[in-house]
Amino acid sequence: MKKIRLLTPGPTPVPERLSLRMARPIVHHRSPEFEAVFARVREGLAWLFQTRQDVLVFAASGTGAMEASFVNFLRRGDTVIVVDGGKFGERWSKVAKAYGVAAVVLKCEWGTPVEPATVEKALRENPSARAVYVQANESSTGVYHPIQQLAQVTAKTDALLVVDAISALGAMPLPMDAWGIDVLVSACHKALGLPPGLAFLAASDKAWKQNEAADLPRFYFDVKRERDNQRKNQTAWTPAITLVEGLDESLAMYREEGLETVFERHARMARAARAGMQALGLALFSKSPSAAMTTVNAPDGVDSEKLVKHLFKQYGIKLVGGQDAVKGKIFRIAHLGYFDDFDMLVVIGAIERGLHDLGAKIELGAGLAAAQRSFAGAK
Amino acid sequence: MKKIRLLTPGPTPVPERLSLRMARPIVHHRSPEFEAVFARVREGLAWLFQTRQDVLVFAASGTGAMEASFVNFLRRGDTVIVVDGGKFGERWSKVAKAYGVAAVVLKCEWGTPVEPATVEKALRENPSARAVYVQANESSTGVYHPIQQLAQVTAKTDALLVVDAISALGAMPLPMDAWGIDVLVSACHKALGLPPGLAFLAASDKAWKQNEAADLPRFYFDVKRERDNQRKNQTAWTPAITLVEGLDESLAMYREEGLETVFERHARMARAARAGMQALGLALFSKSPSAAMTTVNAPDGVDSEKLVKHLFKQYGIKLVGGQDAVKGKIFRIAHLGYFDDFDMLVVIGAIERGLHDLGAKIELGAGLAAAQRSFAGAK
Repeated sequence: MKKIRLLTPGPTPVPERLSLRMARPIVHHRSPEFEAVFARVREGLAWLFQTRQDVLVFAASGTGAMEASFVNFLRRGDTVIVVDGGKFGERWSKVAKAYGVAAVVLKCEWGTPVEPATVEKALRENPSARAVYVQANESSTGVYHPIQQLAQVTAKTDALLVVDAISALGAMPLPMDAWGIDVLVSACHKALGLPPGLAFLAASDKAWKQNEAADLPRFYFDVKRERDNQRKNQTAWTPAITLVEGLDESLAMYREEGLETVFERHARMARAARAGMQALGLALFSKSPSAAMTTVNAPDGVDSEKLVKHLFKQYGIKLVGGQDAVKGKIFRIAHLGYFDDFDMLVVIGAIERGLHDLGAKIELGAGLAAAQRSFAGAK
Repeated sequence: MKKIRLLTPGPTPVPERLSLRMARPIVHHRSPEFEAVFARVREGLAWLFQTRQDVLVFAASGTGAMEASFVNFLRRGDTVIVVDGGKFGERWSKVAKAYGVAAVVLKCEWGTPVEPATVEKALRENPSARAVYVQANESSTGVYHPIQQLAQVTAKTDALLVVDAISALGAMPLPMDAWGIDVLVSACHKALGLPPGLAFLAASDKAWKQNEAADLPRFYFDVKRERDNQRKNQTAWTPAITLVEGLDESLAMYREEGLETVFERHARMARAARAGMQALGLALFSKSPSAAMTTVNAPDGVDSEKLVKHLFKQYGIKLVGGQDAVKGKIFRIAHLGYFDDFDMLVVIGAIERGLHDLGAKIELGAGLAAAQRSFAGAK
């Protein structure tokens, strides 16, 4: 027997309750029955985004919402500033290029967050920049970029702050209105625990104002059309009905647990995972670790790709390794979504076993003990 | 107790076998396990499309694939010809407008198919037209447009034939390569019986050639990028994993039944539904009825909206009424997907009851008897 356990930054494990809900007979989307569900989902999403704005739902992966965050708020030939600290940061430039937008790229060394002063300087040097694009959690490195401080920087300018919170929303505080985030995009298959297929986007008044002048072509991802429809609890195009039903259930679970409690659970797991890895003598890769995941340098002499493959093959534990320059050098433990303290013991225990199997000199049990102490010290 | 039964042109009922498959624990998409599923799905889709081309899978509703059929094959300022015989035909013009493409619109009276000669004339008068856009089944009217003949027309020109087979694929023959369809788009929540969230697109050599010169901006729906990835059994962006798993199961069901048998089942249900309605003295609305649905004029004195509402409220039978100019005048019975002969007895029986309840003068049982005779006479 081999139990399979995903600790990957999307998809994340789907709670049984969501699977059961989605397995119910399908309802027609142009019906009062669906509209009642969608109304509840809209309200729940606004609560989750901590915004009074509309949170729009698209049938798409997260990248669809990233594209939407360009085409709906920019004009042909506009300049934007993009923070690029990993695979997802890189994607901003690719979208910009596809749409004829000039991107000023602020490269961050992988593992390092952007400095607010760097963004401030870039905005000073590019006063016509219409927006700053950044990840909350850069999934390829586990770096949390300082969103609140970045919002303070953009607030003083005409530029929007566009945040990809695909792997962050619901795992850590990102109060959209309180912090002044202008465009917040996310997706359903991370902290929310659904299978992939829904993307979300909410925009501030400042962003909606910019939407009026935007002239990049768009159709499927037209936020204005969606807002008009979704305010009537309908979608412009056929919605991913079962995922919307599952989202209704996921948001109910969030409400039952409470937003602050969910954030604290993620923070507690992150602290324990970090403590566990450090107790094994491993160094953390991210200099600004997010609550969604823990990225770790493999010890000398251990290829992280080999470790990741071994953990899955031998123990059914699915982690992800590093990409590009850090391939073979780091491994990533995602602990966002349907996880609790004891899941951290499982993953730390598996990593101990795996490292031991591969001949690394680690003290078996040291990581687990550190995690237990971390939990005990937690509020 | 009230059993709910959907006979709507998308979503359609989800076979229990697909729901169970999709309720299984989620797998990670960047894994050999998922790649094996995706390889099988790619093969199955090519079989279903009857093509040797790649059938690309997008996490989107059908409209996403309609957009993809513009942005990947056209240049800014191009002219195209669009067949507009209903709500979905109208959508072509809207996409064209959004992307700065000039659309020569061939309006068909609702309920009437386009004449191949009309398209031929339009192509003669617009020799620079790059493509002809048409629905196979126009869901708002139940009209089947003569795809094979249209392909013969476009084959003699440089224009592509782009077919929206969202509510047609898998319910009627549309052999892409044999007929010479250049771009065939579809979705998973019609004949295939899945919940919405996957869109498909396949392109001919002629279309791929035009893709090389296309300059409309695109990112999420970039077919070239998807082809490069999907040939490696991966997708450029996170796929809708559970729907892909369900699609694997749906295609297995198709293979077990056999494509010709599925088509004959749909044709048989369509004949019986038409016979049943006519035996009740009702006239068919579509002058070119498709095998996917039967559209019917409500009898004098009966508001079709009222009938549709009554059938759902009283009997749990969900049909759809007419839109725009035919609102209140027609009702639509969709019989594509997970339906058999006996489901037709249910819906005909419910319509008889509903009409009777609303005071229409019909002979109870006449529709059912006609359907039975139709089935008995069927091969």
